[in-house]
Amino acid sequence: MMQQRQELYVKKIKDGTVIDHITPGFALDVLRILGINGKSGEVVSTAINVESRHLHHKDIVKIQDRELKPGEVDKIALIAPNATINIIRNFEVASKKVVELPSTIRGIITCDNPSCVSNSREPVEPDFAVDGREPIRLRCHYCGHVMEREDILKQF
Amino acid sequence: MMQQRQELYVKKIKDGTVIDHITPGFALDVLRILGINGKSGEVVSTAINVESRHLHHKDIVKIQDRELKPGEVDKIALIAPNATINIIRNFEVASKKVVELPSTIRGIITCDNPSCVSNSREPVEPDFAVDGREPIRLRCHYCGHVMEREDILKQF
Repeated sequence: MMQQRQELYVKKIKDGTVIDHITPGFALDVLRILGINGKSGEVVSTAINVESRHLHHKDIVKIQDRELKPGEVDKIALIAPNATINIIRNFEVASKKVVELPSTIRGIITCDNPSCVSNSREPVEPDFAVDGREPIRLRCHYCGHVMEREDILKQF
Repeated sequence: MMQQRQELYVKKIKDGTVIDHITPGFALDVLRILGINGKSGEVVSTAINVESRHLHHKDIVKIQDRELKPGEVDKIALIAPNATINIIRNFEVASKKVVELPSTIRGIITCDNPSCVSNSREPVEPDFAVDGREPIRLRCHYCGHVMEREDILKQF
C-alpha cells in the first residue's frame, strides 16, 4: 500500500507543461480552453478528482512538448484559481508559477447581457470586476451583469 | 531512462475499469460516451496519444469504482474497436475482454437521414450494416445512408 501511495498519478514528462492543483473536476475544461481534444496527436495525461495533500482533491494535466502562452494561463486562472503551472525541460522544473487572478478581467470574455454597451458597435472593451474567486464571479463594469463559472466556460 | 520506460502512464486503480488500447485521440470521446465530465466526483485518469507496444499509439482511461454496463461497452466499440475492457477488483484483473463490433448495429444510434423510414412515426428500429471497422462506417439498412465516425460521435 505504501508503494501505491507514493506512486505518481500520471507519469513524468520529459518536456512540456504540468498544470497541477486544478479545481477538482475541471481538468477537461482546462483541456478545452487549450484546444486539446486528442485529435492533433498531442501527448496528454490527466488525473481527475484525485487526492491532494493541500486541497482535499485536485485535477492534474500534463502536456508533452508544449509550453503555455500567457493568454492561455489567464483563461485557466478564471476556472482554476489555485492551479500551478510548471514548465518542464529535460525532466526538471524549469519554471513554476501559481496562476494569478487579477482584480479586473479585460478582453478575455464578453458580457452575456446582449444590451450591454460592450456588445454594441461602440469600441468598448469588455471589463469585469472579480467579485468572487472560487467559484469565480465576475461583474460587468458597464451594466453590472454578473457572470458565473458556467457562463464563462461556455465562451471557451 | 529505463525507469521512465517501465513506469505506468497512469497509476493503477484498486477497483474499477481500465479501458486500454483506445484508438489514439479518442479517450475524451470515451469519457463523453460514459457521461464523465469530472463534475460528479468520479476519480478518473487518462493518457492520450501515448506509445503502445502493439499499435503505434493508444489512449487509456482508468475509472475508479465503476464497472461498465454492456450498453456502454457497445458504444465504445463503435469508436474504439480495438479497445480492451479490464474490470479491476482489489488491484487484480477480475475480467478482461476485447470490445466486439458486431456486423449489424441496432438501437444504439439513429439514422442521420431525416426522410429515412426509421425516423418516421413507424415503429422501425434503426438498423445499420458495419461497412468499415476503423474508422467506423455504418450503412442504414432502410435508406442506404452512410454514417461515419464524426456523425456517430455527435449522437453521444
